[in-house]
Amino acid sequence: MRVAVLAAALSLSLAAQAKEGMWVPQQLPEIAGPLKAAGLELPPEQLADLTGDPMGAVVALGGCTASFVSPQGLVATNHHCAYGAIQLNSTAERNLMKDGFNAATLADEVSAGPNARVFVMDQITDVTDRVKAAAGTLSGIARQQAIEKVQKELIAACEAEAGFRCTLYSFFGGQTYRLFRQVEIKDVRLVYAPPGSIGNYGGEVDNWMWPRHTGDFAFYRAYVGKDGKPAAFSPDNVPYQPKRHLALATDPLEAGDFVMVAGYPGTTNRYALFDEFQNVATWQYPVVGQHLKNVVAIVEAAGKQDAEIEVKYASTIRGWQNAMKNWDGQLEGFRRIDAAATKQAEEQAVLAWLKAQGRDGRAGLAAHAALVKLAADARATRERDLVIGQIAGTGLLGNLRMLHRLAIEAAKPDAERAPGYQQRDLPGIEGGIRQLERRYDPRMEKQLLAYWLGEYLKLPAGQRVPAIDAWLGGNDAAAITRALDATYGATTLASTDARLALMKADAAAIEANADPLLRLAVALAPTLKQMEDVAKARAGDGNLHRPVYLAAVQAYKRSQGQGVYPDANLSLRITYGNVMGYSPKDGVAYTEFTTLDGLAAKATGEEPFDAPKNQLDLIAAMTPAQKAAVPVNFLSDLDITGGNSGSPVLNGKGQLVGLAFDGNWESVSSNWVFDPTMTRMISVDHRYMLWIMREVYPAPRLLEEMGAK
Amino acid sequence: MRVAVLAAALSLSLAAQAKEGMWVPQQLPEIAGPLKAAGLELPPEQLADLTGDPMGAVVALGGCTASFVSPQGLVATNHHCAYGAIQLNSTAERNLMKDGFNAATLADEVSAGPNARVFVMDQITDVTDRVKAAAGTLSGIARQQAIEKVQKELIAACEAEAGFRCTLYSFFGGQTYRLFRQVEIKDVRLVYAPPGSIGNYGGEVDNWMWPRHTGDFAFYRAYVGKDGKPAAFSPDNVPYQPKRHLALATDPLEAGDFVMVAGYPGTTNRYALFDEFQNVATWQYPVVGQHLKNVVAIVEAAGKQDAEIEVKYASTIRGWQNAMKNWDGQLEGFRRIDAAATKQAEEQAVLAWLKAQGRDGRAGLAAHAALVKLAADARATRERDLVIGQIAGTGLLGNLRMLHRLAIEAAKPDAERAPGYQQRDLPGIEGGIRQLERRYDPRMEKQLLAYWLGEYLKLPAGQRVPAIDAWLGGNDAAAITRALDATYGATTLASTDARLALMKADAAAIEANADPLLRLAVALAPTLKQMEDVAKARAGDGNLHRPVYLAAVQAYKRSQGQGVYPDANLSLRITYGNVMGYSPKDGVAYTEFTTLDGLAAKATGEEPFDAPKNQLDLIAAMTPAQKAAVPVNFLSDLDITGGNSGSPVLNGKGQLVGLAFDGNWESVSSNWVFDPTMTRMISVDHRYMLWIMREVYPAPRLLEEMGAK
Repeated sequence: MRVAVLAAALSLSLAAQAKEGMWVPQQLPEIAGPLKAAGLELPPEQLADLTGDPMGAVVALGGCTASFVSPQGLVATNHHCAYGAIQLNSTAERNLMKDGFNAATLADEVSAGPNARVFVMDQITDVTDRVKAAAGTLSGIARQQAIEKVQKELIAACEAEAGFRCTLYSFFGGQTYRLFRQVEIKDVRLVYAPPGSIGNYGGEVDNWMWPRHTGDFAFYRAYVGKDGKPAAFSPDNVPYQPKRHLALATDPLEAGDFVMVAGYPGTTNRYALFDEFQNVATWQYPVVGQHLKNVVAIVEAAGKQDAEIEVKYASTIRGWQNAMKNWDGQLEGFRRIDAAATKQAEEQAVLAWLKAQGRDGRAGLAAHAALVKLAADARATRERDLVIGQIAGTGLLGNLRMLHRLAIEAAKPDAERAPGYQQRDLPGIEGGIRQLERRYDPRMEKQLLAYWLGEYLKLPAGQRVPAIDAWLGGNDAAAITRALDATYGATTLASTDARLALMKADAAAIEANADPLLRLAVALAPTLKQMEDVAKARAGDGNLHRPVYLAAVQAYKRSQGQGVYPDANLSLRITYGNVMGYSPKDGVAYTEFTTLDGLAAKATGEEPFDAPKNQLDLIAAMTPAQKAAVPVNFLSDLDITGGNSGSPVLNGKGQLVGLAFDGNWESVSSNWVFDPTMTRMISVDHRYMLWIMREVYPAPRLLEEMGAK
Repeated sequence: MRVAVLAAALSLSLAAQAKEGMWVPQQLPEIAGPLKAAGLELPPEQLADLTGDPMGAVVALGGCTASFVSPQGLVATNHHCAYGAIQLNSTAERNLMKDGFNAATLADEVSAGPNARVFVMDQITDVTDRVKAAAGTLSGIARQQAIEKVQKELIAACEAEAGFRCTLYSFFGGQTYRLFRQVEIKDVRLVYAPPGSIGNYGGEVDNWMWPRHTGDFAFYRAYVGKDGKPAAFSPDNVPYQPKRHLALATDPLEAGDFVMVAGYPGTTNRYALFDEFQNVATWQYPVVGQHLKNVVAIVEAAGKQDAEIEVKYASTIRGWQNAMKNWDGQLEGFRRIDAAATKQAEEQAVLAWLKAQGRDGRAGLAAHAALVKLAADARATRERDLVIGQIAGTGLLGNLRMLHRLAIEAAKPDAERAPGYQQRDLPGIEGGIRQLERRYDPRMEKQLLAYWLGEYLKLPAGQRVPAIDAWLGGNDAAAITRALDATYGATTLASTDARLALMKADAAAIEANADPLLRLAVALAPTLKQMEDVAKARAGDGNLHRPVYLAAVQAYKRSQGQGVYPDANLSLRITYGNVMGYSPKDGVAYTEFTTLDGLAAKATGEEPFDAPKNQLDLIAAMTPAQKAAVPVNFLSDLDITGGNSGSPVLNGKGQLVGLAFDGNWESVSSNWVFDPTMTRMISVDHRYMLWIMREVYPAPRLLEEMGAK
């Protein structure tokens, strides 16, 4: 008895420590003990095998995470991760976002789009020496170009064998580099998505919120050529047979249980400078956030007038709304925990510690000063960079700008082209060109550009762009309207075929083209190139100084007995902890699981609380015990962020218990300053997924394939 | 061990049953077992002694409950119960509502106002036989008058000895009558009230809400003549020495602990007909509620322009706001538990059961039909009754109308006067006349009357009142303005002395008085008298039928094994249960206690979250253990309602652990249909009270007097 009690006490204190940390697989020896203590039943070393069981089943979608859940390449991810594919296959007559999608047979599974990918981990190689050797003591743009060059070389060599996609990841601002090689599956099909009233139940109202009742899951399937090798979409392709797939949990998940997540978190900024934090907390989130709110309002108003605009911009608007709400949540969290004071105090402690090291601290202090200067330089033109970036990136104009750049880059040998414009990027570019026709409406694009051009007119004279001024031919709203009407009225490049043809054109041909929108795109190029070069020079300098400073931060943290893991960077991470609620404020506790009764209680019949009638009828007919067996969503204290969406949640046996799909409102500020008391992950329980697939929107074929009882 | 486990299990199930029930003291034998099982450590029979310890310490204030907490007549109640007295002693220069009041010595204690009372229980006598004999088989107004007559006789006999106030209470709609005799202490003084930023922390925002951090407590002192007998305010009076006073808890109150409340709950309607429920749920709460919102908005707008209006109408507006929020909460609760369906099903079950009784059920069925008819009659003129009632009851006009009626009644022998206009009522009437000068502003009264007169103009022609039409001399807003300006511009009765003089005038003199506002009051009298007679006739008929029907309901409930207690009627009740949180919705739990940290987290510096700076500084300087020793508010599953405000909350030893001051938002609908899952009482913890009096707004004199360590 005493041993058990001791173990329990130990596991509790370690679990409390375990909350923070997006650990790289290479750190498994470091966290093996805490993992076991927290409740992992597998040998921790088993997790180090990234192509073994269960890690080999975890895949990246590019921006989301997913996992194989059958030997036939069935992939589970979030509804919101598959949303683009669901939208792409929707028409005015057949609204899959609303009604769901349920392929009766393999033959009914539809393409998730030309850009959809499933990336299966193959190997990770430490290439720090290669990159450091190439960068040497260079600084500025030369350093960045040297790194880009070696990056391209490394990737080219890595991708020499067909079917792989390679990515170079930098850790701690350039302290360590790792080259990921992943099988790149290019034929991804939509298999199953519940109706939006399940998959997006609660919508924007509940986004980031607890209590939650969202069935945020969907299924893809990975297809390959008959030879088993990745291939572009073809009716002849066959389901991919992954080496590993996840098994469904055999024991019911309960409060306090161990859970872990492997996935591809996008970005955290826990090692950012105080000045960089302040730029975000006092400008980006409040000021840029207000711009996002303004453009969302413009699109919503237009969508209310016109269903076509509403459908075409649904996915775009969703991204903005998510960011806005996230940013507001971060600002709220910053206030709650006084993040600015914490951040500043932390940095001051590091600097004081460095000063106390005397000679040994000087490099770190100098690097810090250099980074502070870089941050100040970037702030000086942030308004212009925002406005020009938004204008240049908007829909059709952005598409044409990319085609022009492609023509310029295509003239160079492949290895010398800018990243994103190499041979390997062409399918993605083509996908983007084709996809635009589903996401573009000239009336809407003109309104969006009019908004940003209005902001452009507010820039100080020294930051104005002559090419835009010339195109506008005036300095007021009337000029903007005239220029946009003339340009969009005359362009012929809204046609996908016309744009696809431009993929083959050389720069001279594009620059000679009389299409007025293309001329605008071409006219913007020098300014954009100049902005890009400045950014690269800053990146190069940052790459020189940041590893030095972060090495000092690491040394300081270790001197304080704190664990150190690198900021999220879209590379594979492991995080673990326990099913656990939290107290959002005094007198209130958020409990671990939500229930079908809670889901029904939220139903209003109106979107986003328009639970399907048959679901509500089923719930009404269930006994309490039946309902208790189907938890809907659950909380745990894992450390995740955007990019982890769709990540499989595994129990101590490595079995699937759910899919991560959100962080709670109070956790979003943890991207900058971790708050252990309130940071929670929100997951959809696999028992709810199975119940939906069994009773509400039945998919017996998939249940059988997944081995569900 | 087995015995202990069994006892615990038993106590749990009984505690769960115990939640519902406002038990009359006469039911103590019935609830003695459950009380002990729930955790009462005193012998239950000790509670049956209403002048013993601790029940003898519980007193009524008329609308609120309170308790003696020292041998020198110190009375603890809610800040909001003492609000009228606090307001009455406030001036523009000395705002006690804002700054609090803290009498340094006995001599500094100030009168709580001429109408303030402390009623100390003396005895309860069952007088059912007397009343039933008097009413016989009479019906309509004759029955009501017969009951009023015997009521007056009983009260007169009971009050024959000076210093007592007697009240006749009817239970189960006239099934049982009990005569309460209470010592009526008429010199009540304000001793201590914390600043509004403590006593009303959270204000209307937090009203009815959890989590809560309100220091809703204040102290009065009861004074009597030197002979120990009740006497009107005099500087020569001395503190009353109560037979009993409450001791402070010796053990810290914790989650799950037994608590009980004795107090004077005002009204519940758990035995109302479905039709009566519907009238409230579909008309009174939504429609009359909207009128209240409208007049509150009018007063608030005027108060913003003028501080004098703001102060004078603060108490009035608070009452309306409380009602509005309560009604909205009841409507929300009705929807949540589908109260209409429950109510209808319950009534149908009773009727079906009665039908099944054959001959024995006929009386009950006939009584039910008669009550349904009475409810329909009342509904037919509800709009008119509301509008005329509001007009006739407004401020100065209401005061004059009362003086006219007093003159009419005063001409009769005392025993034949209408209730409320007898000799015994004169001090109360005089208090009301004097108090008006602190609560009246002609500009505001005109606006309020203009609102209701606007509603009057919407009444159907058949419901119009010729006297009002004649006075208005028109049918539009302009006529209303003209009539009000002329009347209020010329009246001289805003003078308190002038109105006090009218107390001595006979009806003829009043009816001959040329004051235009008094003429309006006189002109309204016949209509009001007619409305009163109709109401009395309905009351008489109700009194005939309701006991018959409710006897059937009781028999039905007992046949179903359900406990039966009468609806609240301002008479003394006991309710008990446990310190217990609840789940307001799926995924959320409200925990039992709130903390000083939670209080500080709410502070914004702006009313109503303007916690005093010294309080926040003190909290910031406390250790976690020190803060843990001072819970702020707590939840328990006791069954209370308005009138219970200020009730002492007692632990299992009968010691004071706090003061009840509110129900939670989800409980308010329990006045009509009890919801055991969400009905909770909110109390201020005595440890918070003592901490405030020790550290924040110190009152060492009172702490010593209460025996606080």
